Amino acid sequence: MFITFEGGEGSGKTTLIAALRSYLEEMNLSVVTTREPGGSRIAEKIRKVILDIENTDMTPRTEALLYAASRVQHLDEVVIPALNANQVVLCDRYLDSSLAYQGYARGLGFESVLKINTYALDYLPNLTFYIDLDPNIGLERIKNRSQNRLDKEQLAFHLKVREGYLKLAELYKDRISVINGNQPIEDIIKEVLAKIKEVI
Amino acid sequence: MFITFEGGEGSGKTTLIAALRSYLEEMNLSVVTTREPGGSRIAEKIRKVILDIENTDMTPRTEALLYAASRVQHLDEVVIPALNANQVVLCDRYLDSSLAYQGYARGLGFESVLKINTYALDYLPNLTFYIDLDPNIGLERIKNRSQNRLDKEQLAFHLKVREGYLKLAELYKDRISVINGNQPIEDIIKEVLAKIKEVI
Repeated sequence: MFITFEGGEGSGKTTLIAALRSYLEEMNLSVVTTREPGGSRIAEKIRKVILDIENTDMTPRTEALLYAASRVQHLDEVVIPALNANQVVLCDRYLDSSLAYQGYARGLGFESVLKINTYALDYLPNLTFYIDLDPNIGLERIKNRSQNRLDKEQLAFHLKVREGYLKLAELYKDRISVINGNQPIEDIIKEVLAKIKEVI
Repeated sequence: MFITFEGGEGSGKTTLIAALRSYLEEMNLSVVTTREPGGSRIAEKIRKVILDIENTDMTPRTEALLYAASRVQHLDEVVIPALNANQVVLCDRYLDSSLAYQGYARGLGFESVLKINTYALDYLPNLTFYIDLDPNIGLERIKNRSQNRLDKEQLAFHLKVREGYLKLAELYKDRISVINGNQPIEDIIKEVLAKIKEVI
């Protein structure tokens, strides 16, 4: 079972995933929590190039391809072995991030981003939760964190990202659930857990 | 006019391109010589990750995506501006390298490598020269150079790369010319120059 979590910065994915892990482990499931490019040294190196504040002249197409490269290394090293061992994989960000950020907000289009992610299409998540939150609120929440090249984008960019996610949720209704991110974290956890139990 | 040069290590591409540049400039053409990822700081950073001898656990799919990323950054920063300025671009390695090395020798298949290179397909070369040489001879020629992760592959890998190039030359007859690399460099230059003049 492969479950991914999507959402803008400050939407609370990290807390949500940690809580879900405990609940699922109580149900005697073996759980792996990860995030792109977590747990892969090479994927981490690629991410360093992407998020380097100096690389302002990186074009959106390069950015999209680097995310696809980091994704496939993380798939091969972390996600696929866990799925093969019948573990539940909870992954913070995956393919839909590329579709929303590079495909929609950067304007590359969903189609070309799907093409360059051709290897990841063999491993589509069983479930995806998009934690939907007004970027004004999300950015306010993270303003004291250290920020990378993408966090530093203007509000208009983050509004576009949200628009992209909502379009994806329309396109992939069966896979993507939209969760209201502007409710207490306990309620988010309850809602997501109910959905997961339904599918398991 | 966009001309690319392909071939295994030690096939003499560097010398050939330098000589062609002089000849074409004598014909009053404005020429840019480059190599992937030449002239682009970000593309160079990406290449460092690819060729790092430590990264032995990099999967072929990641390798292919990183080359595609480096390629599109070099296209955007170097090749496209030169073509827009009506310059002749002579480029050492391009899309066919990914097809021969990752698509054929690593076994990913031409089709998936073409997909992840979707952005480069908008900029196919007008002419491509494949300098064909027995890898036994090529590797002997470079044995005193410092070697990167791909150079260090076994002979069997380089034989597969050559097989891949020859298949590509069949598939793209109109674009790719196969040049016998086991002749004096003067003869190679003459042959390539004749073909370029024919097309110009």
